[in-house]
Amino acid sequence: MKRRLITLSSPLFRKQQLFDTLSCSSHHQFHVNLLSCAETTNPSSTTTTNGGVAATIKDPEPPVNVEKGIHDRQVSFAKSTHKPKEKKNLVILGSGWGGFRLLKEIDMEKYNVYLSTPRNHFLFTPLLPGAACGTVELRSIIEPVRRAVYHEDYHYFEGKAIAIDTENRRVICKPNYEQDPNFSLNYDELVIAIGCDVNDFGVPGVKEYAYPIKEIQHARAIRNQVIQCFERAANPSTPVHLRETLLHFVIVGAGPTGIEYAAELHDLIRDLSKHFPPDIVEEVRLTVLEAGSTVLSAFDTSLQRYTQKFFRRNHIKIRTNQQVKRVISQNAVELHDGSIIECGLVVWSAGIRPRSIPVSQGPPLPIDPKTKKILVSDHLQVKGFENIYAIGDVSLIESMPLAATAQVAQQEGLYLARALNGTIPKEKPFVYHHSGQLAYIGNYRAISQVGALKSGGFLSWVFWRSAYLTKLVSIKNKFNVLMNWTSTFFFGRDISRF
Amino acid sequence: MKRRLITLSSPLFRKQQLFDTLSCSSHHQFHVNLLSCAETTNPSSTTTTNGGVAATIKDPEPPVNVEKGIHDRQVSFAKSTHKPKEKKNLVILGSGWGGFRLLKEIDMEKYNVYLSTPRNHFLFTPLLPGAACGTVELRSIIEPVRRAVYHEDYHYFEGKAIAIDTENRRVICKPNYEQDPNFSLNYDELVIAIGCDVNDFGVPGVKEYAYPIKEIQHARAIRNQVIQCFERAANPSTPVHLRETLLHFVIVGAGPTGIEYAAELHDLIRDLSKHFPPDIVEEVRLTVLEAGSTVLSAFDTSLQRYTQKFFRRNHIKIRTNQQVKRVISQNAVELHDGSIIECGLVVWSAGIRPRSIPVSQGPPLPIDPKTKKILVSDHLQVKGFENIYAIGDVSLIESMPLAATAQVAQQEGLYLARALNGTIPKEKPFVYHHSGQLAYIGNYRAISQVGALKSGGFLSWVFWRSAYLTKLVSIKNKFNVLMNWTSTFFFGRDISRF
Repeated sequence: MKRRLITLSSPLFRKQQLFDTLSCSSHHQFHVNLLSCAETTNPSSTTTTNGGVAATIKDPEPPVNVEKGIHDRQVSFAKSTHKPKEKKNLVILGSGWGGFRLLKEIDMEKYNVYLSTPRNHFLFTPLLPGAACGTVELRSIIEPVRRAVYHEDYHYFEGKAIAIDTENRRVICKPNYEQDPNFSLNYDELVIAIGCDVNDFGVPGVKEYAYPIKEIQHARAIRNQVIQCFERAANPSTPVHLRETLLHFVIVGAGPTGIEYAAELHDLIRDLSKHFPPDIVEEVRLTVLEAGSTVLSAFDTSLQRYTQKFFRRNHIKIRTNQQVKRVISQNAVELHDGSIIECGLVVWSAGIRPRSIPVSQGPPLPIDPKTKKILVSDHLQVKGFENIYAIGDVSLIESMPLAATAQVAQQEGLYLARALNGTIPKEKPFVYHHSGQLAYIGNYRAISQVGALKSGGFLSWVFWRSAYLTKLVSIKNKFNVLMNWTSTFFFGRDISRF
Repeated sequence: MKRRLITLSSPLFRKQQLFDTLSCSSHHQFHVNLLSCAETTNPSSTTTTNGGVAATIKDPEPPVNVEKGIHDRQVSFAKSTHKPKEKKNLVILGSGWGGFRLLKEIDMEKYNVYLSTPRNHFLFTPLLPGAACGTVELRSIIEPVRRAVYHEDYHYFEGKAIAIDTENRRVICKPNYEQDPNFSLNYDELVIAIGCDVNDFGVPGVKEYAYPIKEIQHARAIRNQVIQCFERAANPSTPVHLRETLLHFVIVGAGPTGIEYAAELHDLIRDLSKHFPPDIVEEVRLTVLEAGSTVLSAFDTSLQRYTQKFFRRNHIKIRTNQQVKRVISQNAVELHDGSIIECGLVVWSAGIRPRSIPVSQGPPLPIDPKTKKILVSDHLQVKGFENIYAIGDVSLIESMPLAATAQVAQQEGLYLARALNGTIPKEKPFVYHHSGQLAYIGNYRAISQVGALKSGGFLSWVFWRSAYLTKLVSIKNKFNVLMNWTSTFFFGRDISRF
């Protein structure tokens, strides 16, 4: 007989409710049949369905010494004899700005909500460059999706949607762990909010050698690489030419992320300079490469000029009209004019592209051929599908193309939640309200552009910090970020490598 | 012409001083000649010496487009024409409790201090189990060795000592980055404080599948693995037998680390239980395996019994007299009696052994055949070597064998600093003062044993927290740990996996 940690919760009541939820819709038998998940058609696989959730189970490696069969879980679900609740199943794919806002606003008294995404947290992207330089800690700017909502009818499953069976209204998901069998989620309404991925624009070597800056683990990798470069450069046996290479940091892309990363790295180097020998610190160079003719193209030209001037003063070099031909190694980048730049780190923040959209079993989803985004109406409904919606960076409103920003995604999530909740009239389309934009440019300075108001400097930085502190999605994160900023201000950034 | 970040510091004055330091001792030519670093005998290698530091430089992969030679650094050192300072060179190997305390206490007006270790931070080990469960953040319990001391004559180099040339009084170090050439450090006094490593006792599979808990990156790996187990178990397609396996956490070793890890994991699971379905949480099991007949063998039997009883109440199973025969995979452990335990995670905290001691070129260092530790006198001097000392877990005082604990190492570091500084009489031997011991046992309870005072419970836990908060080595860490504890108390532990 096994002892279990039953003191950890008093779950009997909640457990019963979970069974109700899981057995709330009809029990179809359903076999996944896709090129991309061909293993599930294995004759040894069994399919069990439990309401909103269906598991296509394949016999895994038989673990040692276990007699229990794979049907136990189905049996345990079958115990429930309570009446199913009259609620629609809402499936959300993605935990970014759009999906997370929708999740927070949706009325769980009207929907059983199933969220599935391979990333079990929401990332507060504006502070990502800061996290990559130790201004805030990594875990301070992420929020677990399981904590987002406390409701018995909210369920999160870690997995990537690989196919949508529009006829049977199911999404097939692949768990993060390769060997685990796929599962599927029944939907009445489906929201695709899977966002964007890093775009290498087909430049060779980017995937292999450059450091993207899009997810929280990227911030960790970049931070370690910067400190490694410094430690290697400080070793007495490092030849001068290698030391110069290691201490040259190259950022590709002068959009808000690239500029903010350069600014934060400048601040980190200011902290490092207190602890590394001066001859090491003197060698440090920062270069921002931009394919276009201007930095921060979404900002007003006066702010672009201000940023360029400020960067020049801090000896951060901005090279516009410089297209990267290839990344040769971790330590060399080739430009289109044939010149080669040696460096210790290449940060790639040149652009984004929609993630691979789940295959449709049935009529294909309408995709814009140029942007590869899902075409949606101004009600955010995927064209040709009544009960499928797409929001955020992965979607394109044909009548009103919007920038791929957090505020667009967030407003779309909020609009859709209200539309699904029925709190706004059905005929009301989505309207975007631009609330301005901000960017940190280093050394306690930021630029801000809100309506006709444009400003740059220390006060903008105060505004920048206040705005983001307010927008952080949980009190926990607000507290932790505030404490990180306090710690960084008084004690500097941590320079340990691990 | 290159622009450099010269605004980042005003280093001209300090730079000159650094050159003085580096050129302060005689310029021997010295070739590394060792089996373990045979590549340095490559005829293409060149040796440059600069006072305390000598670089055995091997031509690395020639980077693209660089014309500078490998001698530039030597040239730049040669610029210095100032008189060398009359100071002894002290080389410290290791940044653990012993080495770090020595570093903090040594008088830099009397010594040029060179610290070399592959780990560029000090780790506050007592809070490691907490860091592995998210009670404190990883970076809150480490302190960069570069920040430890602000002095022009303190230098840190990231590298592992591989050989000691006792005749020429040099240590040969290998940088962390494989391809970088070795360097050597001249010493007048050498302190070996390299500490201990995880001991697998020759049990097969430990290295491959078990999770050690000794360094800060181990805490990160364990934390991710626990959350991964929960997420996988919560996926609807996970078969029941696999789910049961994943939710069984096994800790090998019931010393303070093993017990504290079990306690912290219990607390983490309590937090997780708020966010995972109750049927998942109900399945969780914790088992502590101990080869000996008792837990926490260094504690009083009354406290051992108290801990065992408390663990039983929290449904943490302690199995004493259970020797692990092998770790079969990440998910299975075989015991000596032939039984197999399935689990999602095996944490290995069964014991430690001294790290590989640098080879001596010249007479060998005296090593105790049983413990493999360096034999030292009660003045912490390595037997037979006048100017070499060993402190902490790697050393053994023949007349007075001490436990391999943080407080022993710390007191040895302090004693040696005072002895080297000349603030205590030369004839005074090292005497260990036991200041008691503490262990966290979960759910706001701890046990403490200070002199004849033995107690367990909530007040001991308050004492436990206060004691460790006081002992944290920097105000920064004290602040961060306090804020982490506050955040954890109010908002719970973070359950994101990344």
